[in-house]
Amino acid sequence: MFADRLAEAVTRKRTQLVVGLDPRLDLLPMELRGEAVLGRAAAASSVARFCKGIVDAVGPYVVAVKPQSAFFEVLGADGFRALEEVCDYARSAGLLVLIDVKRGDIGSTSRAYAEAFLEPRGEGTPLADAMTASPYMGHDSVEPFLAACRRHGAGVFFLLRNSNAGAADIQEVALSDGRPLWHHVAELLREWGAPLVGDAGMSSVGAIVGATYPRAVSEARRLLPTSLMLLLGVGAQGATPADVARAFTAGPSSAIVSVSRSIIYAYRDSEADWRVAAGAEAQKLAAQVWAAAGW
Amino acid sequence: MFADRLAEAVTRKRTQLVVGLDPRLDLLPMELRGEAVLGRAAAASSVARFCKGIVDAVGPYVVAVKPQSAFFEVLGADGFRALEEVCDYARSAGLLVLIDVKRGDIGSTSRAYAEAFLEPRGEGTPLADAMTASPYMGHDSVEPFLAACRRHGAGVFFLLRNSNAGAADIQEVALSDGRPLWHHVAELLREWGAPLVGDAGMSSVGAIVGATYPRAVSEARRLLPTSLMLLLGVGAQGATPADVARAFTAGPSSAIVSVSRSIIYAYRDSEADWRVAAGAEAQKLAAQVWAAAGW
Repeated sequence: MFADRLAEAVTRKRTQLVVGLDPRLDLLPMELRGEAVLGRAAAASSVARFCKGIVDAVGPYVVAVKPQSAFFEVLGADGFRALEEVCDYARSAGLLVLIDVKRGDIGSTSRAYAEAFLEPRGEGTPLADAMTASPYMGHDSVEPFLAACRRHGAGVFFLLRNSNAGAADIQEVALSDGRPLWHHVAELLREWGAPLVGDAGMSSVGAIVGATYPRAVSEARRLLPTSLMLLLGVGAQGATPADVARAFTAGPSSAIVSVSRSIIYAYRDSEADWRVAAGAEAQKLAAQVWAAAGW
Repeated sequence: MFADRLAEAVTRKRTQLVVGLDPRLDLLPMELRGEAVLGRAAAASSVARFCKGIVDAVGPYVVAVKPQSAFFEVLGADGFRALEEVCDYARSAGLLVLIDVKRGDIGSTSRAYAEAFLEPRGEGTPLADAMTASPYMGHDSVEPFLAACRRHGAGVFFLLRNSNAGAADIQEVALSDGRPLWHHVAELLREWGAPLVGDAGMSSVGAIVGATYPRAVSEARRLLPTSLMLLLGVGAQGATPADVARAFTAGPSSAIVSVSRSIIYAYRDSEADWRVAAGAEAQKLAAQVWAAAGW
């Protein structure tokens, strides 16, 4: 059960921090950027080296990494190979892997996505421990992800109330009963997650909530008392560790906080080596989140 | 401008049919399935051979192919390589490529997806002419896709009212003004698509509508008089060519009809070679759709 494995890791490492792996070629350290101009295969190799360096540096301070698939897909098949390499590397370093793909489609297609990301690859391990997904096409479109949670101990985090400005366009639309749409979606998530509550009291079906709206965080926690929460928007998007505090009222491992750019590109505001800078920033943020969570 | 290129192709070839490439290993013809058990690289090579065979067979009867990314991603980096190979093959055979990925994320991430699917790869061509996307995270999440339409003549089709049973869970929820949510989404699509109406009178920003709800098809056309429409659900999901007729009131190239399983796996209900069976089914459906469109 993913939620229980997460709880064990949070308790043991005393951190709820997740580092988002968003490798952008134009932001890579100069020593890696040079090779990246030689073509896609070279760029993918730079990306893999960068992400593995980040994994080494932040490992002690985070429970999971969250590779953002788009930044690998942009390099085509070579990028996808780098994604596989980075996921395997992070897992063998003892970190959980939460792959950020936001997939969702008709049942037979979601079935293939569940197999691609959450199920054992042949005789091997799954690519990831958990994935992000979109609830927009409804219950039959997410059933294959829930099945992977039941059968393979995976986790899934659904878009609920995002941190970007445009998220309000649809997620905040007022329903006939006065609630915003995302409250209705929360109800669906609660239903989907109820059969997947683990021994630690939380469900492996989680919700993605933008920490840039602290009120949304506490409302989401009220609506989803047993759902894991993946909080985004801390750092480059402007939210602070204090903004996430209300998510943790259900327990110290009831939420995780993902930070990408301000950790992995910390070297840009620092004199230090990129790995050292990322490690220091992760250590600092992990402590701040732990303190804000208040357990 | 994608909508104009589509209109040119529809008029020239007298077909609005799109064939969906959903290569499932367990459904491949026996001659290809045998090799697929040898591992991922062999399976990906079988998938590529199958899809290219389908492209050859259906080429004269379709305007575009719609590869479903999930069925390639499930084979990892090898699968992604096969996807690239199939897209390039279809384009060089003179077909438009509409890649079915249903992506959508915060702006900087959608930017990477637009680059991955719609923009020229280095000195080369884009992977696809158009992609499918999710509107769920709002205007800033789709802006990079719209930018690719403006700058690179690409097209984008957004989820509007899907053909699966669960789609109603969110898309049909009643808003405070009594409309279903998808009518509100249609309004957003109209706004996003207005600056991208081409010479033929249609916008390169399209909508995905399930033909399994014929009433939704005519409502969508009324709400979106200048939007391309991608109609799904004909064939294996139960809709008939007649169910799509109302989408074409805006012109013979104002909509396209994508059919996957009943064409590519036509050999399973036939004595013929798999290519011959797919070609015959595509020819039949193209004629039926053309007749139903009534131009």
